[in-house]
Amino acid sequence: MASLVIAPVARLIEAFNRLPGIGPKTAQRLTYHLLRAPDAEARALASALVAVREEVVFCERCFNISDAPLCPICRDPGRDATRLCVVEEPLDVLAIERTSEFRGAYHVLHGAISPIDGVGPDRLRIRELLERVDAAAAAGSPLVEVILATNPTLEGEATAMYLDERLAGQVRSVTRIARGIPVGGDLEYADEVTLIRAFQGRRALAERSLP
Amino acid sequence: MASLVIAPVARLIEAFNRLPGIGPKTAQRLTYHLLRAPDAEARALASALVAVREEVVFCERCFNISDAPLCPICRDPGRDATRLCVVEEPLDVLAIERTSEFRGAYHVLHGAISPIDGVGPDRLRIRELLERVDAAAAAGSPLVEVILATNPTLEGEATAMYLDERLAGQVRSVTRIARGIPVGGDLEYADEVTLIRAFQGRRALAERSLP
Repeated sequence: MASLVIAPVARLIEAFNRLPGIGPKTAQRLTYHLLRAPDAEARALASALVAVREEVVFCERCFNISDAPLCPICRDPGRDATRLCVVEEPLDVLAIERTSEFRGAYHVLHGAISPIDGVGPDRLRIRELLERVDAAAAAGSPLVEVILATNPTLEGEATAMYLDERLAGQVRSVTRIARGIPVGGDLEYADEVTLIRAFQGRRALAERSLP
Repeated sequence: MASLVIAPVARLIEAFNRLPGIGPKTAQRLTYHLLRAPDAEARALASALVAVREEVVFCERCFNISDAPLCPICRDPGRDATRLCVVEEPLDVLAIERTSEFRGAYHVLHGAISPIDGVGPDRLRIRELLERVDAAAAAGSPLVEVILATNPTLEGEATAMYLDERLAGQVRSVTRIARGIPVGGDLEYADEVTLIRAFQGRRALAERSLP
């Protein structure tokens, strides 16, 4: 049976299978698809793979992906450099940019603190974040706000708490994105922790003075 | 926003997105994973892709994938060449081989007849199948059985019916795999057509003569 799957096919199945979210069945299906796909399709994928590794770099200021020493956001003079949004991954930058809610700059940590996985603060771009904050303070214009937008997971919360401690006194305001019931979601199905966060994060609808 | 996704990244997302079952979100996730993956992982995938196209050929007898003019099954003298199992795709061969139920040879059509998609019999390896059957008959040893194992879909059934007609009189027996309730399945949830097939395909549990 094993000998039926010839070596180059087995190697491609294995390579696909190593990608996150791609199981052995999907890996097999993708491989057999590419075996019969037009030559241009297979070639496009292979060359895009090589190009992405050769041409993409990380922004030397915010560590977002970039095609130049500074990424498009750090290059943009229209962005408010006094507000920094700290995220775990480059994909998070894309998600936030889609909302058009934030016009400041970013800092991509490339992960979150996770002692179980052996990821300490030194494995993330935390030193570089602290240096950016220090540099601004040393220049006499400390950052107005650092928004901690790490994921609301165990690791993301731990990272936010760690950063909050390290940043205390260095910036005017350190904030954390709200955790609560997602829009369109159902209170009934919300887990306890989310519901507790939703209560803790409650806000007055409007300021009204009693008569 | 669009300018945020730099060109090589956009190209890889697009190439992944073109694969079957890979949506834009998964394509994005895979791309960002490969951006940060160890160099060896990205390189292994790219080179496996190229190798699979360069080194894999189709068996000139059964059109299964192969690394030589004849595939491992067609090369195997232990296989019963008088029984032929006709399938749509190379993956079907793997699935059947896993069962160890069949010790004959295969013929891979590379698709099924689908007028809607413009796939007629001439776009499949049907001519080659008929030639194999004819050659055996001409040599004085007609095939004992041709098992039509195309999928139980509209297209697969149409293909099986078409082949049954074309093969009539050329082989001792043309059979079709059984359609019915899958093992572990639930009658209650079976669709009507499957249930009808299950009834039509019913078999006596044992031959018993009445007293």
